[in-house]
Amino acid sequence: MQKLITTRTRITDLGKPRIVVIGGGFGGLEVCKGLGGFKAQTVLLDKYNHHCFQPLLYQVATSGLETNSIVFPFRKRFAKQEDFFFRLAEVTQIFPEENIIETSIGRIRYDYLVLANGATTNFYGMADVMEHAHPMKTIIDSIKLRNIIIRNFELALLTDDPDIMNSYMDFVIVGGGPTGVELAGALSELKNHVFPKDYPELEISQMDIHLIEATPRLLNGMSEASGLKALQYLQDMGVNVQLNTAVKSYDGQQVVFQNGQALRSRTLIWAAGVKGHPIAGIKSEAIGRGARIMVNEFNQVKGHENIFAIGDAALMEGDPGFPQGHPQVAPPAMQQGRLVAENIKRIIQQRSLKPFRYKHQGSMATVGRNRAVVDLKAFRTQGFLAWLIWMFVHLISIVGFRNKFFVFLSWLWSYFSYDKSNRIIIARPKDGVQ
Amino acid sequence: MQKLITTRTRITDLGKPRIVVIGGGFGGLEVCKGLGGFKAQTVLLDKYNHHCFQPLLYQVATSGLETNSIVFPFRKRFAKQEDFFFRLAEVTQIFPEENIIETSIGRIRYDYLVLANGATTNFYGMADVMEHAHPMKTIIDSIKLRNIIIRNFELALLTDDPDIMNSYMDFVIVGGGPTGVELAGALSELKNHVFPKDYPELEISQMDIHLIEATPRLLNGMSEASGLKALQYLQDMGVNVQLNTAVKSYDGQQVVFQNGQALRSRTLIWAAGVKGHPIAGIKSEAIGRGARIMVNEFNQVKGHENIFAIGDAALMEGDPGFPQGHPQVAPPAMQQGRLVAENIKRIIQQRSLKPFRYKHQGSMATVGRNRAVVDLKAFRTQGFLAWLIWMFVHLISIVGFRNKFFVFLSWLWSYFSYDKSNRIIIARPKDGVQ
Repeated sequence: MQKLITTRTRITDLGKPRIVVIGGGFGGLEVCKGLGGFKAQTVLLDKYNHHCFQPLLYQVATSGLETNSIVFPFRKRFAKQEDFFFRLAEVTQIFPEENIIETSIGRIRYDYLVLANGATTNFYGMADVMEHAHPMKTIIDSIKLRNIIIRNFELALLTDDPDIMNSYMDFVIVGGGPTGVELAGALSELKNHVFPKDYPELEISQMDIHLIEATPRLLNGMSEASGLKALQYLQDMGVNVQLNTAVKSYDGQQVVFQNGQALRSRTLIWAAGVKGHPIAGIKSEAIGRGARIMVNEFNQVKGHENIFAIGDAALMEGDPGFPQGHPQVAPPAMQQGRLVAENIKRIIQQRSLKPFRYKHQGSMATVGRNRAVVDLKAFRTQGFLAWLIWMFVHLISIVGFRNKFFVFLSWLWSYFSYDKSNRIIIARPKDGVQ
Repeated sequence: MQKLITTRTRITDLGKPRIVVIGGGFGGLEVCKGLGGFKAQTVLLDKYNHHCFQPLLYQVATSGLETNSIVFPFRKRFAKQEDFFFRLAEVTQIFPEENIIETSIGRIRYDYLVLANGATTNFYGMADVMEHAHPMKTIIDSIKLRNIIIRNFELALLTDDPDIMNSYMDFVIVGGGPTGVELAGALSELKNHVFPKDYPELEISQMDIHLIEATPRLLNGMSEASGLKALQYLQDMGVNVQLNTAVKSYDGQQVVFQNGQALRSRTLIWAAGVKGHPIAGIKSEAIGRGARIMVNEFNQVKGHENIFAIGDAALMEGDPGFPQGHPQVAPPAMQQGRLVAENIKRIIQQRSLKPFRYKHQGSMATVGRNRAVVDLKAFRTQGFLAWLIWMFVHLISIVGFRNKFFVFLSWLWSYFSYDKSNRIIIARPKDGVQ
């Protein structure tokens, strides 16, 4: 066993406490940063070799940003941090009794384990939707979606049949949270400013963008005023928003709603929810709502003092402001990541732990140029100022100065040119739209 | 038949002469541009929806540039050109007697046909090399190669066996033309400036870069002085250059040369040559050396007055300066493209045709920062000035102001940071290195 560990993962034993972090999203990155300079060994495991700034995936999917400016290689981020180890690996099982995890590259021993592996798309058990709809959770999802959107218009050109043509040109987005709202807005900008120039042979007014939300309002995590304003913006921009509408089935051609109505579209984008994907080995009694791992106020997994779960993967109930658990967005993940790093240090230093209290700074969503909604603690705002705030907050959050700079330039460029420049299909022709 | 044409390709018959251009590389793009404003219908067909600036593919493969800044959507380029039609399609057959081509989206009638479908990698019939080596001709080749280079280092970390480790860290580039020389130089910059920071656990001095060339010198298309200088630059940068060495076989692990020597490497990059890939329907007597299509001095395919072939796809013998045919690089393709556009107009206007004479402006190759070789008509230069000229010429040749600007900024950034920022693996983990 020991031989296998050393020959495959080759993580040198430094004789210091070893913290293994699974997943380099917003939360995992903060844990690693927080452990910098501390006498411990940090091991980050991820399936990808880069952090991905998920809030901007929708801009990659809609040709606004190029891929590379929203991802950042882990090794570059931590090149100067001592005793930091990265391994490109997928974790398949946890053995909590032995303090060992099984990964695609072999077994790894840990002293402290942080589960920061985020969430995955939740299709709520609808197998047909899972098979035919397009999720928007990873960089590859967004590249595929970009390929599909552009290719749809190339295919719409090739038919005389108005039904087939419309099935290519109509888009159904399910989920009225920030991802759905922002994607609908970006698609409508393509419709209004880009596609009429690219496809003079098509009647672009035939392009319909449907945003479907199961509850009575948009942006449920935000104020009612913001939800209403986002609705108004989208309607002004020509998006057909349907509230109180839930999906029943989708066969790749037609989406049927629970109210019996139906829409024809070859492209259903699923932004309706996420769920945890707990790694085998966590006791089932520790798995709560939405397959999130139940943690105490120190983010410790129930029954395991040295295993922490944070961010989208974790469910912490009882925080006074958020008794039902925190929203699955970046800020709670980052705050929990920072505190878990500190609490692990405290355990090692035999000091008492600090409980987590989420400091909610606000929420925001953008709909299009000059149009955003922002709910901050101090004030709420909508429109141009909100849009500037949204851009500023996203820019400072992007990892890496070069990425910030290139995203900023891309935005500036798009703003003045009304153009989205990255409308390219990157796929071998034989791979079809994928 | 007629029904099939109109329902599938949906190219409106404008009642004007129709020029169909197959392939939107350097040559095809010039044909389309040249026909702008003329009373004719231009139809561009390409497997991709974008032009690719092939001379910089090696910088995408070595993490220096992001993908999108070297490609440019055709529809954007020609949005303002009247009577221009683009179709995403692959051409499978030409029926010269009927003036029709068969494509993946149906049959298309032409009055004039321009074959500008370039060249493909030439493995000289070595099936094992074709199976295991990595070509460098398309944007997808270069993304795959980037994935493989980075992933190799992640895998090299996981072994104690020095042979296996070296097989991941050693790279064999076959072909001492500009692509091979530039790629070898870029890899050596990764070795010298980037990988030591990213992989402190690896002994980066173990990374060997081999450049293999079958003839006695590098950069055969350039002056002897430039070839020698490139050799010296590469050797200074630690590249192991082997001249007079031809590949015999490669099984994915070991490359064997015709002199009996061998090198162990999992990554063989094949930049040793290209060949035409003529479309079915061109008579075999019109196919010449390197599977290029034989054309007369007007780029007309032998036996077909209304079919032209240009650029890498064409072989024009008898140009006084280049009696054996033109080099397969961008400038002849562009000059032929421009002239073919003009000659098609002249045919339609019943004026006499102009013969092609290649105006060779010079050749150049870059090896690394401050190191390039430039042979111009007026003078030759090497080093920093050559490097500035190389950058200037490439920048002005990139399609689109935005792309020029972003490539320029990326170069500026890399120059001062000694960094290559795009070292990311974009592939689903289950897809492996591909």
